[in-house]
Amino acid sequence: MRNKIVGSPEEALADLKDGDSVAVTGFGTSYGFPVSLLVATKEKDVKNLTLVTNGLGAVGQLRSMLLVASGQVSRLVAAFSWRPGPRTPADEQIDAGDLEVELVPQGVLVERMRAGGAGIPAFYSPVGVGTSIHEGKEIREFNGRQYVLEQAINVDFAFVRAYRGDRLGNLDLRGSNRNFTPAFAKGARVVIAEVDEIVDLGEIDPENVGLPGIFVNRVVKATVEPDSVRPALRRPKDTAREYNGKPGWTRLEMARRIAEMLEDGTYVNLGVGMPTLVSNFIGDRDIILHGENGILGYGEQVDGDRVDKNIFNAAGEYVSILPGASYFDSVEAFEMARGGRLHTVVLGAYEVDQEGSIANYSVTDVKKGGIGGAMDLIAGKQTLIVMMEHRDSKDRPKLRQQCTYPLTGKACVDVVVTDLAVLRRSGATWTVEQVADGFTTEEVLELTELDASPVPTPA
Amino acid sequence: MRNKIVGSPEEALADLKDGDSVAVTGFGTSYGFPVSLLVATKEKDVKNLTLVTNGLGAVGQLRSMLLVASGQVSRLVAAFSWRPGPRTPADEQIDAGDLEVELVPQGVLVERMRAGGAGIPAFYSPVGVGTSIHEGKEIREFNGRQYVLEQAINVDFAFVRAYRGDRLGNLDLRGSNRNFTPAFAKGARVVIAEVDEIVDLGEIDPENVGLPGIFVNRVVKATVEPDSVRPALRRPKDTAREYNGKPGWTRLEMARRIAEMLEDGTYVNLGVGMPTLVSNFIGDRDIILHGENGILGYGEQVDGDRVDKNIFNAAGEYVSILPGASYFDSVEAFEMARGGRLHTVVLGAYEVDQEGSIANYSVTDVKKGGIGGAMDLIAGKQTLIVMMEHRDSKDRPKLRQQCTYPLTGKACVDVVVTDLAVLRRSGATWTVEQVADGFTTEEVLELTELDASPVPTPA
Repeated sequence: MRNKIVGSPEEALADLKDGDSVAVTGFGTSYGFPVSLLVATKEKDVKNLTLVTNGLGAVGQLRSMLLVASGQVSRLVAAFSWRPGPRTPADEQIDAGDLEVELVPQGVLVERMRAGGAGIPAFYSPVGVGTSIHEGKEIREFNGRQYVLEQAINVDFAFVRAYRGDRLGNLDLRGSNRNFTPAFAKGARVVIAEVDEIVDLGEIDPENVGLPGIFVNRVVKATVEPDSVRPALRRPKDTAREYNGKPGWTRLEMARRIAEMLEDGTYVNLGVGMPTLVSNFIGDRDIILHGENGILGYGEQVDGDRVDKNIFNAAGEYVSILPGASYFDSVEAFEMARGGRLHTVVLGAYEVDQEGSIANYSVTDVKKGGIGGAMDLIAGKQTLIVMMEHRDSKDRPKLRQQCTYPLTGKACVDVVVTDLAVLRRSGATWTVEQVADGFTTEEVLELTELDASPVPTPA
Repeated sequence: MRNKIVGSPEEALADLKDGDSVAVTGFGTSYGFPVSLLVATKEKDVKNLTLVTNGLGAVGQLRSMLLVASGQVSRLVAAFSWRPGPRTPADEQIDAGDLEVELVPQGVLVERMRAGGAGIPAFYSPVGVGTSIHEGKEIREFNGRQYVLEQAINVDFAFVRAYRGDRLGNLDLRGSNRNFTPAFAKGARVVIAEVDEIVDLGEIDPENVGLPGIFVNRVVKATVEPDSVRPALRRPKDTAREYNGKPGWTRLEMARRIAEMLEDGTYVNLGVGMPTLVSNFIGDRDIILHGENGILGYGEQVDGDRVDKNIFNAAGEYVSILPGASYFDSVEAFEMARGGRLHTVVLGAYEVDQEGSIANYSVTDVKKGGIGGAMDLIAGKQTLIVMMEHRDSKDRPKLRQQCTYPLTGKACVDVVVTDLAVLRRSGATWTVEQVADGFTTEEVLELTELDASPVPTPA
């Protein structure tokens, strides 16, 4: 009788050895992470691992960072190798040359793992073409557009987390917590699923098996409690920054302006950070929100009793769901983006420049940074709205002649909403559509490097 | 209020015009076909269509053949352009040069449509490399293996069929009837879903939306009854063919021998035709059967009250399901195959030759034929068992020095079970492991072109 259930995380990891590659799922909240397997891997003290993961998490959390902090990882393939905040062991090791990093846009990461599991060694991708992330890779034109050749990723092990599992390895995935599980499992030689509950065959409805058992080699009951679920909603700060001694718009005012720009009947992705505030101004309008972790049709941010640990947006914020919502994995979420099904994407940014290029990832090299899913989200034919402060924390302009940070995308921004103005681009021509009360267009433009003009007065 | 529901198939097709490309889903039984949309397209009398579909079905059925018979199709992209039986309008039009055909292996067909919807213009595939199907295409080596560059397919319209749908376009897909629906929808500009039932928002559980509404543009209630569901199980003929005046094994005896070869704990695909008979000899053994339409863990063939019109294998035979079964779409089904998750594939064949190459599709050119999913199924690292008669209907050997029909795969057959013998290959060396009662190894080999030797007697 086939029985993939093993007695403990240690037993599940019996053949994990030095030099192996391990893909670790999880996104946003703590629930979807295979925490027992991470702890057991740390205790096993295997070395020289290649780690494939979305991000490392913070020091002290039960996340992939555990294995980096313990010096077990020599190579990292991730969408985030860095996050704002105190320096981490990853920062130290990268700077010392002890941790090699390959930063991969989030949607490309899951697609490459999925390809590895689908017998597809390489595919052409529109994501990040023209940015520094692809230096040295083959670029090829199809139908007049440039694409980059992406190679499949195959790993020795995948650690995934599921709600329930059975002895054939069938997994029951829940809510928007599916995220990387199917793709990472497919690309692995040995898939170990950590589950909340082991159930009898047939308990998981055949219509709703999130990952068929053929992709899973071992099932183990979780032995370590996840980190505590984020206890309460983080209420946004809403103070206005001052420029020339006068207040600009608050973040909520910016968010409301963006909500007003969204058209009814559209599908919209709100990027992590400020853009998620826009969700508070949608109300009962006919706008469907998309999260790249794998959710369509989410509503407002929730806390307390309204939190379902399996339902969160791509920022990891617990959200309500609206009638007609659906869940899917990140592979399908990014199909929607690259395939052009999203009408509008709202992103935060460090800089936007004259030609409409955007820089929204974190650090000035491709080793230490957080690329996330932004490059993937803007690879479709969507309208791109950028929401950012008018000047940075060192009072430098964020609207530039040319971006100084590494690009997320070239000539793709349609509208910028700052705390001082709304600007719209056509080619390399920018028009100032609105400015904050008490400011003139000239005053606002003096605080940028951009060449722009006011909306022409009707004749 | 977003409302994708339209009043009639005619209204749903209002903007379908001459020269458009249309992808039509459906596989096996009649239930999964968008019959109302096919009938309405026929009545609309648009011309010069490109039709993307698995196969045409028979004349007189409510299938894609309707549109070919009415002369509305000028180009066909399909896994089957031909089927055994009387000549069809497709045969006539192909011979007359009025119907251009691109035959595509079934798994590649769904993957190319999926790529079209995922923003991926092209990908490298292991399927059918070394066969005539890819003449003129780019071949490239990755990790020591050859792959062919496959281009995405995008179409103007997809016609899909679902059990239930709501006003946001969310579809409820059922059982092994998912098949081509997600992939074909993703690759289309306008997706029209024909549904049994239109339901209120929220009636479809967000955990079990088969295709999220973002991929669907119009939902219409079916107005035409599907063809009658196949009424009863076709019981196999089980007479033995005679060679040299003596009976060989019957088909059921061949099937039983193959069942005995299957190892416990494996995942097995049984090809359409004779191989499905093997399922009758598996009983309660620990063998999990895979169907490329999208089913894992099916059991015996069923009829009468046991038929669920949504549960069938890749041969279109209604089957039982076993505890721990799961359903998925054909994209995922072929990931399992190409990704190497199947241990054994059993195929019928026209010919197998000395180097272990197999020819199992129908006609001698790449215009009129039925390639099906065989090339895709053997692209993994599985054991390939061929089940076929020892000689063809014209009494020519089917075990050849070199295949005379177009190849399905090169040097990939591990075992052949005919109605006279069991032969096993290693490189270009074949060993006769067993012969039918009353036959000698020499006698069996004289009825082939193959060089083979008996199993050496232990010293």
